[in-house]
Amino acid sequence: MTFEAFHEAVREILEGIAEAVRGLDPSQVGWVIEALLQARSEGRKILVVGAGRSGLVGKAFAMRLMHLGFNTYVLGETITPAIGDQDLVFVISGSGSSTLPLTVAKMAKSLGAKVLAVTSHPTSPLAMTADLVVEVPGRVMRSREDEYHSRQLLGDHEPLAPMGTIFEDSCMVFLDCLIAELIARMGVSEEAMKSKHATIE
Amino acid sequence: MTFEAFHEAVREILEGIAEAVRGLDPSQVGWVIEALLQARSEGRKILVVGAGRSGLVGKAFAMRLMHLGFNTYVLGETITPAIGDQDLVFVISGSGSSTLPLTVAKMAKSLGAKVLAVTSHPTSPLAMTADLVVEVPGRVMRSREDEYHSRQLLGDHEPLAPMGTIFEDSCMVFLDCLIAELIARMGVSEEAMKSKHATIE
Amino acid sequence: MTFEAFHEAVREILEGIAEAVRGLDPSQVGWVIEALLQARSEGRKILVVGAGRSGLVGKAFAMRLMHLGFNTYVLGETITPAIGDQDLVFVISGSGSSTLPLTVAKMAKSLGAKVLAVTSHPTSPLAMTADLVVEVPGRVMRSREDEYHSRQLLGDHEPLAPMGTIFEDSCMVFLDCLIAELIARMGVSEEAMKSKHATIE
Amino acid sequence: MTFEAFHEAVREILEGIAEAVRGLDPSQVGWVIEALLQARSEGRKILVVGAGRSGLVGKAFAMRLMHLGFNTYVLGETITPAIGDQDLVFVISGSGSSTLPLTVAKMAKSLGAKVLAVTSHPTSPLAMTADLVVEVPGRVMRSREDEYHSRQLLGDHEPLAPMGTIFEDSCMVFLDCLIAELIARMGVSEEAMKSKHATIE
Repeated sequence: MTFEAFHEAVREILEGIAEAVRGLDPSQVGWVIEALLQARSEGRKILVVGAGRSGLVGKAFAMRLMHLGFNTYVLGETITPAIGDQDLVFVISGSGSSTLPLTVAKMAKSLGAKVLAVTSHPTSPLAMTADLVVEVPGRVMRSREDEYHSRQLLGDHEPLAPMGTIFEDSCMVFLDCLIAELIARMGVSEEAMKSKHATIE
Repeated sequence: MTFEAFHEAVREILEGIAEAVRGLDPSQVGWVIEALLQARSEGRKILVVGAGRSGLVGKAFAMRLMHLGFNTYVLGETITPAIGDQDLVFVISGSGSSTLPLTVAKMAKSLGAKVLAVTSHPTSPLAMTADLVVEVPGRVMRSREDEYHSRQLLGDHEPLAPMGTIFEDSCMVFLDCLIAELIARMGVSEEAMKSKHATIE
Repeated sequence: MTFEAFHEAVREILEGIAEAVRGLDPSQVGWVIEALLQARSEGRKILVVGAGRSGLVGKAFAMRLMHLGFNTYVLGETITPAIGDQDLVFVISGSGSSTLPLTVAKMAKSLGAKVLAVTSHPTSPLAMTADLVVEVPGRVMRSREDEYHSRQLLGDHEPLAPMGTIFEDSCMVFLDCLIAELIARMGVSEEAMKSKHATIE
Repeated sequence: MTFEAFHEAVREILEGIAEAVRGLDPSQVGWVIEALLQARSEGRKILVVGAGRSGLVGKAFAMRLMHLGFNTYVLGETITPAIGDQDLVFVISGSGSSTLPLTVAKMAKSLGAKVLAVTSHPTSPLAMTADLVVEVPGRVMRSREDEYHSRQLLGDHEPLAPMGTIFEDSCMVFLDCLIAELIARMGVSEEAMKSKHATIE
């Protein structure tokens, strides 16, 4: 058994992530890091928001922010408190037009919070609403040749990394690299992070 | 500003994922695919289980299984039903020794379910309990040279991809590649997957 | 130690629930039961929605609907699928004006789904959007005398059942009574319900 | 249409809650209040734990604790941190023998945390593990006459408040009455609670 689709997807997803993460705009990365560190130094809350798999990637990021001592929350969880003036709302949405995250971004703005959007579409309604945008390309941005290759492989010409897969996997890696930069800047030891990690699980 | 830690982490995480996913044992990958397809053809439930970030990666996988028409559930969510004889319990744990996932695996066995473990430790208690094991290496498996390089970079000699990061990111990609193989084998179109995707979000 | 506030709250909450549940409009109760049974007989999905504690009460209801064999889901959970034409969206909101549940109700209408609102405010935006409304009174509806009594008790004149407490507790009981009626109409045994109850928890 | 089962359930559930809440042992109620206030004054974390509907009732309680300024968390949510020495683990389980809550209670003890159990069974494994127990009766404790009445009503002799319903609804009210006592003791205004309530929902 050869798992052609599996191996083709390995190639396609790894290339997609590498292209997305290496192609990030350094100014945008810099702004995110500054916004996070500023939220921390000013004692602001950071609310992480996203629908579906983007929301799950956001939760994985929020967990690491907690390990680093940030005052972070996830939309919709039990103990998420009031968000207000100068808090940071971190919204992840590939399309930038999912209704609920967009509604949240607008509510956040009206409450005086700062909105940071991670999206593939810098002209989307979410990006237009946000104070800061990080553009993380998804599948639509990738070369047509790759797309063609994978379509040839499958009789039914279907993509192997359907819907937001490339965006979501790229965000997972991008946000983990942000964590690395925060670790370095803050000088936090892995031991310190572990001491905050859930002990009952 | 140069974001050295960010860029070093990009390199370290991408290599870690590539190494992990390309180094998978083809027999193990084949068994997982067979187990999933068999569960589907026999109308069995698939319960996805994991603590912390591994659990979030599991949820991202479960969402795609739902898009493909699998009868899948996540431990601890509202409508998760009875699991029983011949159902498939899919447990993700890097260490293979997190207490709650291990407890769940043992309960699953006693209910007659089949346990599939994704772990970095093939001799862990979880792996010992499971019917099927897929070994996905985490940081501990990586070359010491890389580790040394990243430690040199940071004055405090701390890892840039702390705790389970490499395992979790590798699992995210591995499971998305499994989805690709299932798409190809089942001949499912992206259109069909989209038609199952949440419309309210 | 006398726990005056505790005992006063027992009285206030029990009276609040009894008043709310006994004062329900029988036609509204009838419509809900019909809507639920019709959704079931036609194989429609039932999506349960609510913010905060109302959302938790909704999840407790969804769990019982699952035990009864309804095809039910909760907004925001992992395997929640597409909602569409003729599906039933069950929204719980005391004020009837929480932004996200209201946004969801409007999305549901635009997708052709039927919206059922459980609210204290029959002229709220949510109620105006819904196809069916069940009015469950909250604290605002209660006699001023009770309110006065509890305020006298506490030096600071603060309510003992703050914010939506009476509404949420009343909904919990109301929805469990709906379940009782469904059990009776459908002739489902407790044994059958238990057989669907999560076995791993 | 007469909704006999609905009305019978109203009576049965309201009586069940009243009996449960009014029959609480005042010493046990006092111990819980002391334990919560002590956790607060000493800056300890409070971790709320429960399976299924008991877990949802626990989350509703945790939300109010957050509104009151307690440092509270819910097992399994994203930002739940390390629990350790002298923290308070608040476990809700009617049977007192659900595997995962019991496993959590044991882990909590081994970490030096204090375990508080809310259960119908004061001799259950959970109660045996706990430092403090509050006994909240469920259906099994209720008079056989009521049970007989409701069984007569339904041809199939099935209970109208199946499984843990009476326990869960009683806990919802009990915990809201605890909140009332905390409000009174701490002199917290509703305004102060609202200022902590989620603003984006």
